[in-house]
Amino acid sequence: MKIDKTSPVGVFDSGVGGLTVAREIMRNLPSEKIVYFGDTARVPYGSKSKDTIIRYSRQICHFLKEQGVKAIVIACNTASAFALDAVKENSEIPVLGVIESGARVAAKETVNKKVGVIGTVGTISSGIHAEYLRRLNPEITVIGKACPLFVPLVEEGWLHDPVTVEVATRYLKELKQKEIDTLILGCTHYPLIRSTIREVMGEKVRLVNPAYETALELKELLQKMDLLNTEEKQEDFPYRFYVSDLADEFKDFANSILPYDVEMTKKIDIEKY
Amino acid sequence: MKIDKTSPVGVFDSGVGGLTVAREIMRNLPSEKIVYFGDTARVPYGSKSKDTIIRYSRQICHFLKEQGVKAIVIACNTASAFALDAVKENSEIPVLGVIESGARVAAKETVNKKVGVIGTVGTISSGIHAEYLRRLNPEITVIGKACPLFVPLVEEGWLHDPVTVEVATRYLKELKQKEIDTLILGCTHYPLIRSTIREVMGEKVRLVNPAYETALELKELLQKMDLLNTEEKQEDFPYRFYVSDLADEFKDFANSILPYDVEMTKKIDIEKY
Repeated sequence: MKIDKTSPVGVFDSGVGGLTVAREIMRNLPSEKIVYFGDTARVPYGSKSKDTIIRYSRQICHFLKEQGVKAIVIACNTASAFALDAVKENSEIPVLGVIESGARVAAKETVNKKVGVIGTVGTISSGIHAEYLRRLNPEITVIGKACPLFVPLVEEGWLHDPVTVEVATRYLKELKQKEIDTLILGCTHYPLIRSTIREVMGEKVRLVNPAYETALELKELLQKMDLLNTEEKQEDFPYRFYVSDLADEFKDFANSILPYDVEMTKKIDIEKY
Repeated sequence: MKIDKTSPVGVFDSGVGGLTVAREIMRNLPSEKIVYFGDTARVPYGSKSKDTIIRYSRQICHFLKEQGVKAIVIACNTASAFALDAVKENSEIPVLGVIESGARVAAKETVNKKVGVIGTVGTISSGIHAEYLRRLNPEITVIGKACPLFVPLVEEGWLHDPVTVEVATRYLKELKQKEIDTLILGCTHYPLIRSTIREVMGEKVRLVNPAYETALELKELLQKMDLLNTEEKQEDFPYRFYVSDLADEFKDFANSILPYDVEMTKKIDIEKY
């Protein structure tokens, strides 16, 4: 399939969380078309092994390339941590993960060289953020903390809630004690409880949202490759959503966080790819 | 493979939760051998479609039969709700689910005919408990409530915790207001926070633990078929554990809830079955 400026961008995630990344691309690159895939049949990735995540990610990239995408954004932190190198290896189009862009901004912003990272058990125990950060600046100390209750709290819709504040207070206690000045929101769901995290961490800590930083990085990359869509008028149906299971529930969540109504989601059999 | 009294019992679940069912079988049928399969690569089942769950359950039953089991217990509520009939259909050995046994005891115990059921979104929205209960006694009113935060709270180990009490208080409020006298713990993880649920619901409400009831039903069934293991001395390694991903983390959880140390868990490729 021929790729040009008007080709869509592919975005994938283990489920609905990556929609926070799609949302930032919609906001910051309003002319781009998007093909989104949420692997709702095999969610969550956080508790699965590296081999499994690589196999899943390869299947999804195969599917997205069949849709004629000009670039792929891995919106899932676990997949970015485990599979980015593997899928980049034999890809003829650029593939971006959310971890590198978050790490780059954090390394630039931190003053006291103490950076916190929060995410799922899988992301944090992979130590991938620490690896990127130390490569950028070996003087940086990285303090990681897994926050497994944040995703179900967000999916329950308890975004501004005393329970969420109490859970966040416990999870973030150590990071406060160690006086980090920069905190990477290392899971796609976390920007949705950003105000609670802000409340607990205080105004002085810089919160890094990798969804936003990745959208900016994508823009820069497309410009450099002369693939940025410069059409002023967006098409009627610029965003297509695919899932591996339960398309209706996906639509409900999508409609609650995206700035417009998702008309159509299609279920596909990802195991075939 | 020839089946006799000394053949093992097969138990499967979407992940670790079904170990509460295996634990009740160990306690109440101490001579039985067990082959346990936890589908940790594809957990959770609660958010997946009926077709997907039936396909997964068929693969697992195929695997367990290859291990020479004399009966299969579906320890997972979602799989019991969606796949029990389908896997029973062409099975030469008996297959039990956890929903029927829980419903039968609840129907017998309730006095005011108001029964509550708590479980995952998938189990509750399937309405399967209500279906069984009304078949047993059409006068019973069933009030279902999905409690999606309970599983991650249990897996976080916050079993006796103010946060868990607060979450339980909110989730169970409606069931208390409607004055149920019997509550089915319709998810395998919930017996592990039984004391918190008891604290919130009060002493008068009868809590039904389907894990325990299923173990008793299995015993009765094996006796009737003359397949109950009557050997007094148990073998040295009576319990075998298989998973579809991350065998080590499974072992940690198993060791925290089983009355003995799990020596060996083996990872298998369930997609091949």
